[in-house]
Amino acid sequence: MSRTIITLSQAPEVAHGLVRDLRIRWALEEAGLSYQVRLVDFKELKSASFGSLQPFKQVPVYQEDDLTLFESGAILVYIGEQSGNLLPKDPKKKARAITWIFSSLSTVEPVLQNLTTLDLFQAQEPWASEARPSMLKSARRKLEKLQSYLQDREYLEDEFTAGDLILTTILRIPRHCPLLSEFPELDEYRVRNENRPAFQKALNDQMNSLQSF
Amino acid sequence: MSRTIITLSQAPEVAHGLVRDLRIRWALEEAGLSYQVRLVDFKELKSASFGSLQPFKQVPVYQEDDLTLFESGAILVYIGEQSGNLLPKDPKKKARAITWIFSSLSTVEPVLQNLTTLDLFQAQEPWASEARPSMLKSARRKLEKLQSYLQDREYLEDEFTAGDLILTTILRIPRHCPLLSEFPELDEYRVRNENRPAFQKALNDQMNSLQSF
Repeated sequence: MSRTIITLSQAPEVAHGLVRDLRIRWALEEAGLSYQVRLVDFKELKSASFGSLQPFKQVPVYQEDDLTLFESGAILVYIGEQSGNLLPKDPKKKARAITWIFSSLSTVEPVLQNLTTLDLFQAQEPWASEARPSMLKSARRKLEKLQSYLQDREYLEDEFTAGDLILTTILRIPRHCPLLSEFPELDEYRVRNENRPAFQKALNDQMNSLQSF
Repeated sequence: MSRTIITLSQAPEVAHGLVRDLRIRWALEEAGLSYQVRLVDFKELKSASFGSLQPFKQVPVYQEDDLTLFESGAILVYIGEQSGNLLPKDPKKKARAITWIFSSLSTVEPVLQNLTTLDLFQAQEPWASEARPSMLKSARRKLEKLQSYLQDREYLEDEFTAGDLILTTILRIPRHCPLLSEFPELDEYRVRNENRPAFQKALNDQMNSLQSF
């Protein structure tokens, strides 16, 4: 069986260590599944042939023989079904882990991504300073609720799952500012998961394959 | 086995027919699974006891005996695993359907929801008229790509799946403005799916249970 992650060959330096293929690399390392990586540049990303793989022309794309998947959450669910290291086999425990994948992507990621995009790419816009306080407030509100849930828990559920994996990559997003240090338990949770050998391998591999521009 | 959807008893009139429990009602109707609905008001939604079910205090929540799930995508995946009417049994076909659930929620919904929230709830803000053109442009870009993918297809994949179900509820979001009529094939796709008896039953049940305020 052949497994391939398709992702970008270049990204602005502020995105190195954040590009979403990191999630898939990490998952495959946790699962102990071998894979290869195919790098595409922006020209190929915008091409019609890439559009036939991914209608919205985004990375990562995942291919396993004749199967093509996209959206990091969907890829994690599929890989997770092949490995108890990412999704429990028990259907109810598995459903809870999948709940956290969706919740991390739909409820936590947007508020952190909006703030980060504003700070890194839109700071010169005339409305940026007006918009920031409300974005910061939204982000803090979600992180407060998340920290309160995680209190005294090592992981989101009884054991490490794909939910923790994706949430950890999301908590990395606002690394340009001190937001996460306001939530020390969340920050410890992030560091604890980043210390897993599979994450270190995945991060290292991404950093080595990315060029700046 | 007891299945319960927990959702709001009241919502502004502009949200009737859009509240996210519609997705779960529809899915359970497609699957032919019986369920009950527990309605909560805003006071209960904000309570600590609700927070112990759903850390971010959002609806819908789904309960099946001792299992509690949230996020409509996660609930759909769980129900879909109990019914071939929502997710194919074949693992690869199932993974494609799940890809469309994530893609609809992460790539299509945010641009349509942002525009709709602006028009319905933020139109009086000083920055609203400045922000609208770029939001409209983002929404059009995603819908163009989606329409181009759906061209000549009846469904996202070979047959109706939970991906079509969630995408249809998302295409309903900008109903206050003529945006979708710019994409006639997408609009026909939405109407075709809305004509399913299971959708009509779910919509009717939501409309009958919601109060305005």
